[in-house]
Amino acid sequence: MHYGYFNGTIVPSDQIGVGVTDLGLLRGYGLFDYFLTYNGRPFQWDWYWERFRNSAASLRLPLPLGKDETYAVVMDLVGRADQGDVALRFVMTGGYAPDSISIVKPNLLIMTEDIHPVPPVQYEQGIRVVLDEYVRDMAEVKSTDYKRVILKDSEIRAAGASDLLYQKDGEISELSRSNFFVVSGNRLITPNQHILRGITRRTIMELAQADFEVEERPLLLSELYDADEAFTTSSTKQVLPIVQVGDLTIGNGQVGPKSQYLLDRFNDLIANW
Amino acid sequence: MHYGYFNGTIVPSDQIGVGVTDLGLLRGYGLFDYFLTYNGRPFQWDWYWERFRNSAASLRLPLPLGKDETYAVVMDLVGRADQGDVALRFVMTGGYAPDSISIVKPNLLIMTEDIHPVPPVQYEQGIRVVLDEYVRDMAEVKSTDYKRVILKDSEIRAAGASDLLYQKDGEISELSRSNFFVVSGNRLITPNQHILRGITRRTIMELAQADFEVEERPLLLSELYDADEAFTTSSTKQVLPIVQVGDLTIGNGQVGPKSQYLLDRFNDLIANW
Repeated sequence: MHYGYFNGTIVPSDQIGVGVTDLGLLRGYGLFDYFLTYNGRPFQWDWYWERFRNSAASLRLPLPLGKDETYAVVMDLVGRADQGDVALRFVMTGGYAPDSISIVKPNLLIMTEDIHPVPPVQYEQGIRVVLDEYVRDMAEVKSTDYKRVILKDSEIRAAGASDLLYQKDGEISELSRSNFFVVSGNRLITPNQHILRGITRRTIMELAQADFEVEERPLLLSELYDADEAFTTSSTKQVLPIVQVGDLTIGNGQVGPKSQYLLDRFNDLIANW
Repeated sequence: MHYGYFNGTIVPSDQIGVGVTDLGLLRGYGLFDYFLTYNGRPFQWDWYWERFRNSAASLRLPLPLGKDETYAVVMDLVGRADQGDVALRFVMTGGYAPDSISIVKPNLLIMTEDIHPVPPVQYEQGIRVVLDEYVRDMAEVKSTDYKRVILKDSEIRAAGASDLLYQKDGEISELSRSNFFVVSGNRLITPNQHILRGITRRTIMELAQADFEVEERPLLLSELYDADEAFTTSSTKQVLPIVQVGDLTIGNGQVGPKSQYLLDRFNDLIANW
């Protein structure tokens, strides 16, 4: 059973009703964040909070709760869910608008959800992604705009793929809901433009520091031809190997040892979180 | 008092609660439409329905109701509102998603709203708009994505303006929620790319046919320098003169006779609707 906090009240999530003048619903004016607990504790809470605060500032929405109050709500919800580790979703919108366009007061929703783990076979075999000529509008803000990937769902499935890899004019940015890395020899390269700055991305960059030369810079599509390995990172995907991009096989088409090594380091970190 | 239809049930609109797994709310996966009644009858119903159906098809959402059933719902809601002419808003989203991303069954909301007429002074003096280097993603679909104009609200107000005029690489598309026309001599020119094909736009193009050479084509920013008049069209704005675009005064900075003429023709049409 999951509970949600909505504008000051905590009730079972399936009893929450968002009114029909909400600007998230009517105008797509909303942002969110999403993270997991490990051993009952929110993973990288400081970093998630900082990002959520920055997203809200970018959309000029004042936060109704401070960091500590929000943490207390999170822990209350985690306790009520009473089912081991959970996902937390924050959704903040422009609030109810009498004229359907003007912001009066944001709506803030915080709720726990089941974690939807990646099927183990995807870690064993790696995933395929479809290239898509696209760059997200305001990618750095964790806005609720995910039209593109939902619209392309059948195209992704038809290709036997799991996701889109966005590129524009030959420059790679990110997958639809996760970041992108390539491994070339001892170098670990990840794009730094037109992306959402993922918390798992940041975690992996830190964990990799000791063993890799980490390069955060524009990454060209042409660099995929030389890459030994590629993977994507997100809170649920952790470190998920990518073995094919469009028609191009990455490296030898198998999950690579360096992706596996970084996934192991990530698992070590969360085991003791 | 306004009523709304939500997935088969009609209740007062303020009693409708949209659940927290709705893909419009969580992922911005939604479309809408909006029109007015005149003399109790929906204006240009056939055209609005056609557009709504096309938007739904573009987002690959199956319509739960046919045209006649929808019309019956509309007239039921108009009757319940019992307050003369009203606005109708249709909102359709990707529906409730157990995994926060996959479409199962769309949610359809239809409701009446108060009409928010443009203040008369704006028709007398015309409005100013701020130029914005932007083009809407999937502009032809009436999606719920209006982040841009809400985000720029304070910039628009600071400039003493009413709206944004989108242009990209010197080509004009539309205002944030309405179409754009210029008058040059006897020519009436309106962009035909990266726009939502407005029903009021279409109505005005028909009404203008007898007296103007109507050109539907790419319109360059540079053409504003020679324009005699400019105006915008939408269901609520009807024909609203634009007298200034950024720092550029259009024509003599007054509401022009041809804009006024077309507004009069539009008012003739709706008076007898």
